[in-house]
Amino acid sequence: MTAILASLTPLALRSLQFHHEMAIAALSAGKHVWCEKPMATRLAHAEEMAAAARTSGKLTALGYNYIQSPAFRQIEVLLKEGRIGRLTHVRVEMDEDFMANPDMPFGFKHTAESGIGALDDFAVHPLSMLQRLCGLPTEVNVDMARPFKSLKAADGSERDLETHDIASALLRFGGGLSGSLLVNRSAWGRKGRIALQFMGTEGTILFDQERANEFQLYVRSDAAHEQGFRTILVAPVHAPYQFFIPAPGHGLGFNELKVIEANEILNALEGRPARLVNFEDGLAIERVIQAMNTSFIEQRRTAIGI
Amino acid sequence: MTAILASLTPLALRSLQFHHEMAIAALSAGKHVWCEKPMATRLAHAEEMAAAARTSGKLTALGYNYIQSPAFRQIEVLLKEGRIGRLTHVRVEMDEDFMANPDMPFGFKHTAESGIGALDDFAVHPLSMLQRLCGLPTEVNVDMARPFKSLKAADGSERDLETHDIASALLRFGGGLSGSLLVNRSAWGRKGRIALQFMGTEGTILFDQERANEFQLYVRSDAAHEQGFRTILVAPVHAPYQFFIPAPGHGLGFNELKVIEANEILNALEGRPARLVNFEDGLAIERVIQAMNTSFIEQRRTAIGI
Amino acid sequence: MTAILASLTPLALRSLQFHHEMAIAALSAGKHVWCEKPMATRLAHAEEMAAAARTSGKLTALGYNYIQSPAFRQIEVLLKEGRIGRLTHVRVEMDEDFMANPDMPFGFKHTAESGIGALDDFAVHPLSMLQRLCGLPTEVNVDMARPFKSLKAADGSERDLETHDIASALLRFGGGLSGSLLVNRSAWGRKGRIALQFMGTEGTILFDQERANEFQLYVRSDAAHEQGFRTILVAPVHAPYQFFIPAPGHGLGFNELKVIEANEILNALEGRPARLVNFEDGLAIERVIQAMNTSFIEQRRTAIGI
Amino acid sequence: MTAILASLTPLALRSLQFHHEMAIAALSAGKHVWCEKPMATRLAHAEEMAAAARTSGKLTALGYNYIQSPAFRQIEVLLKEGRIGRLTHVRVEMDEDFMANPDMPFGFKHTAESGIGALDDFAVHPLSMLQRLCGLPTEVNVDMARPFKSLKAADGSERDLETHDIASALLRFGGGLSGSLLVNRSAWGRKGRIALQFMGTEGTILFDQERANEFQLYVRSDAAHEQGFRTILVAPVHAPYQFFIPAPGHGLGFNELKVIEANEILNALEGRPARLVNFEDGLAIERVIQAMNTSFIEQRRTAIGI
Repeated sequence: MTAILASLTPLALRSLQFHHEMAIAALSAGKHVWCEKPMATRLAHAEEMAAAARTSGKLTALGYNYIQSPAFRQIEVLLKEGRIGRLTHVRVEMDEDFMANPDMPFGFKHTAESGIGALDDFAVHPLSMLQRLCGLPTEVNVDMARPFKSLKAADGSERDLETHDIASALLRFGGGLSGSLLVNRSAWGRKGRIALQFMGTEGTILFDQERANEFQLYVRSDAAHEQGFRTILVAPVHAPYQFFIPAPGHGLGFNELKVIEANEILNALEGRPARLVNFEDGLAIERVIQAMNTSFIEQRRTAIGI
Repeated sequence: MTAILASLTPLALRSLQFHHEMAIAALSAGKHVWCEKPMATRLAHAEEMAAAARTSGKLTALGYNYIQSPAFRQIEVLLKEGRIGRLTHVRVEMDEDFMANPDMPFGFKHTAESGIGALDDFAVHPLSMLQRLCGLPTEVNVDMARPFKSLKAADGSERDLETHDIASALLRFGGGLSGSLLVNRSAWGRKGRIALQFMGTEGTILFDQERANEFQLYVRSDAAHEQGFRTILVAPVHAPYQFFIPAPGHGLGFNELKVIEANEILNALEGRPARLVNFEDGLAIERVIQAMNTSFIEQRRTAIGI
Repeated sequence: MTAILASLTPLALRSLQFHHEMAIAALSAGKHVWCEKPMATRLAHAEEMAAAARTSGKLTALGYNYIQSPAFRQIEVLLKEGRIGRLTHVRVEMDEDFMANPDMPFGFKHTAESGIGALDDFAVHPLSMLQRLCGLPTEVNVDMARPFKSLKAADGSERDLETHDIASALLRFGGGLSGSLLVNRSAWGRKGRIALQFMGTEGTILFDQERANEFQLYVRSDAAHEQGFRTILVAPVHAPYQFFIPAPGHGLGFNELKVIEANEILNALEGRPARLVNFEDGLAIERVIQAMNTSFIEQRRTAIGI
Repeated sequence: MTAILASLTPLALRSLQFHHEMAIAALSAGKHVWCEKPMATRLAHAEEMAAAARTSGKLTALGYNYIQSPAFRQIEVLLKEGRIGRLTHVRVEMDEDFMANPDMPFGFKHTAESGIGALDDFAVHPLSMLQRLCGLPTEVNVDMARPFKSLKAADGSERDLETHDIASALLRFGGGLSGSLLVNRSAWGRKGRIALQFMGTEGTILFDQERANEFQLYVRSDAAHEQGFRTILVAPVHAPYQFFIPAPGHGLGFNELKVIEANEILNALEGRPARLVNFEDGLAIERVIQAMNTSFIEQRRTAIGI
């Protein structure tokens, strides 16, 4: 089991290469596995991990913590209940700026060894959110880009970037739904932005992870002169907020997403319903990532393989 | 010369079909022409209008008023001065909800006769803004969608939508710049949204037309513990605000964009520098729209023709 | 009739001393009078102006333009209809920064000749808004302050400020309603802020003049998990917006408040209902200002004289 | 030592009456004491607690957790460094809506036994913040009010409210600084609002506890056309955020304020500098509360006793 937030520490920058080996070894040893995201750096590895999970019958969970927040859960409830009708369009953006500095030294995250770039590094997060809210896309159409061509390495040489910090995808889902997923790890000023726009026949829902303790709802059924986006602060009525704070609007933090995730693992282990991204779900996300990469390389719309 | 805001009145919904005929007749009669957007409903018409303008030597101007606001002009200045460095990525969204109602009757704007849909109806606005800020795209990759399949017509029959109220485009510009343009006339809660995100090597600029009297700037050169998006209210230092109001932060309205546009026409007529989208510029925009439509129909990346 | 925005131009800085003389002369000559705010620099003058208006039977109007906006009118409708129940508390702030600069030269607005300071210079604006929304206060309790003790004059001498750029008032209204009015012309970053908070037994309404094309409404009758402040963009359903723009969310500007004010004068002249602050209303506002000044000087709660 | 968040649970609603007895007993027994806010329900009790603390030489700490957040600490640093110059005016508001419901049953918090009302229930929080940022006020001028006259009790009788859910105070500090403190526990829509406005000769700082992971800074030294409020997301550069999350903008929660507070107690116990409100500081806050109550009852400006 990898440590919480493993992928954020310098050591962890490289540890994600071992998710595959470690997870399979643990499953083989009869252990449940809680693995930090991303699942693996190669699709074949993710497939082997999912196969090992099936064989073992053990619990697996991936660290897609953004599906755990009270705001996100309430959005899911509203969508399920049809509060904004049938979905007509979906837009997701995820942006940070930790790769934005043109003066930063060339590093591991700039090498092909680290993966594709923004796509497999953090687009997996918004995909895990889409997976719960409207299902994963069935077809993708992708472009990628780099904020700069090269950076100076520690040895003074100029090295070309091998990863793509920017990726933009047009999405199609089952049932005619369309959307887009735009990600950028070189967007100055963005620190933990995951901006959702869910548009339906009856209204629209907005969310931004940088203000994770609130979300916005617009419904056309409001009186004509009162229609507007409600900014809703999370409160004890939005589970599982009430287990943390008895008063509304006081706010949970990022780390509490991990506490909730851990609690879901306990739920699963004790046979209760649990909200988790297991290795099977994670593999489905990796297949979308893989199709996105193919779409970019082959410059064509690409259906998601199964 | 078509009237101001012609395209917003019921009569005007159809009047835009006559832009071509009226503009060419006026130019032939030796008149200057100020034509409301969109330029024309067919590319061939736009080409003829641009040709007539060249032949006549008369002044032509299109009603792309959003390039006229003090906030937009200041953004242009900041980009020109390199305040956010070299552009690395550009995102533009334009959303309204006047076509979002699933109970609305099937109307002219749902027919192929009215045009492509969101693309030629109002994506021309954000394209006119891109044209000034970073140039038009040179290659596009487009998907389109409808919020619903059909609507009930006045005669009680169910009619299939022929236009696309939703369009999403991946963009490439000269010099390696990438971006996206997402438009939706069926986005509940959006009333006049034109959201710009300009990301550069030194910072980011944000703008939303629904709060047109402000824009946001992030620069990485700010002290580390003070980095954040500044929300800048337009003021007399942001031309031409000072000709309308002597005090900062009091706000211009949409109609004043048209006043400024009219003033630019006077500037042009009197030989002074003028900020206008003439028929030649408008034709370039129409070519992008046409390429976008082709990209969608042929399901492939499409270069902009000249 | 004084010119629109007279008080904002350098000449006008002193012209307000002549409101009294000019208005009475005009009324005596049988003219209707549209007078820019503030009404007068001394209460006795305002009383004479109101008396002259009564005697003449002519139309009088003061330039309290902030009561004219579509957002403000809708707030008034909501309050009248009891949308937020009975009012329980009211807070108003008005802040700008044109007197905030410690390096500015000592000027006319720093002299006692110009008046009291923030109170009579611009607290009259929020008072005109309170007058329509919940009536004027009946008792006030006031403190005032200066951002700095002295400034350098043009002749190089250091001169003490004679006016108070900061004023804070606790308010009591009829029927047990309480509130506060806080004003500051030396609040860096504020450009045209007039922030209203109206709290009632059923909800709360918020407004800020710096974003004059929107207001916020919270009602406790919303479903528990959906309660939040709606941000409502002004639209054709909010009169008189529809006479300016046919589409919602496109925004009016400050100058259009003056257009609406002028239209109300025409309404009054032609015998239709009109929304105006006449000299009688203006005198009531001046009496509050006077009581506020007395409260500060005598350091005690002061009832408003009649 | 009272439990964390003691005052939020139903039992705790009454437990605060025992802070005095419990704290003194613990100090007498040679224990350090960490006591939840408010310190006591009567000034005499707070004085005895402070005396017992002095006598015992033990560590005491009160649960004024809002002074612990990274945003608040950074604001304190900016003020200390003179980033916005000399303070010219201060405004603080604290609002929640847990006492806003006119249909709620008459309860303990409506009785005089529970204390004064909003003042001693939660105005102590913003006072603890002022204490660190600019010192406590030296003179107050206060009004209080009730959102409704009476409520129905469990036995069906109508009972008059004995506490004041609304309090508004004009403040004077040493050195000529002025300000206001407005609190309301019956403000619909407010859930955990503590809004600070610190205005200085060089700029302004804003903060709202409902968005506790950000604050705003305006400085007049920015270029004229770029002046605006920066919205600064807390990040590892804002201590002690870095001990919780390595990436910026991911957000701490309310509960983590308590973790930081506990850590400060450990700092103090181990002789390191610590940020705490001890019983001596808490007594100073209680004296302000007492003076505020006196000011309201006697309807006069009241100096803070020592």
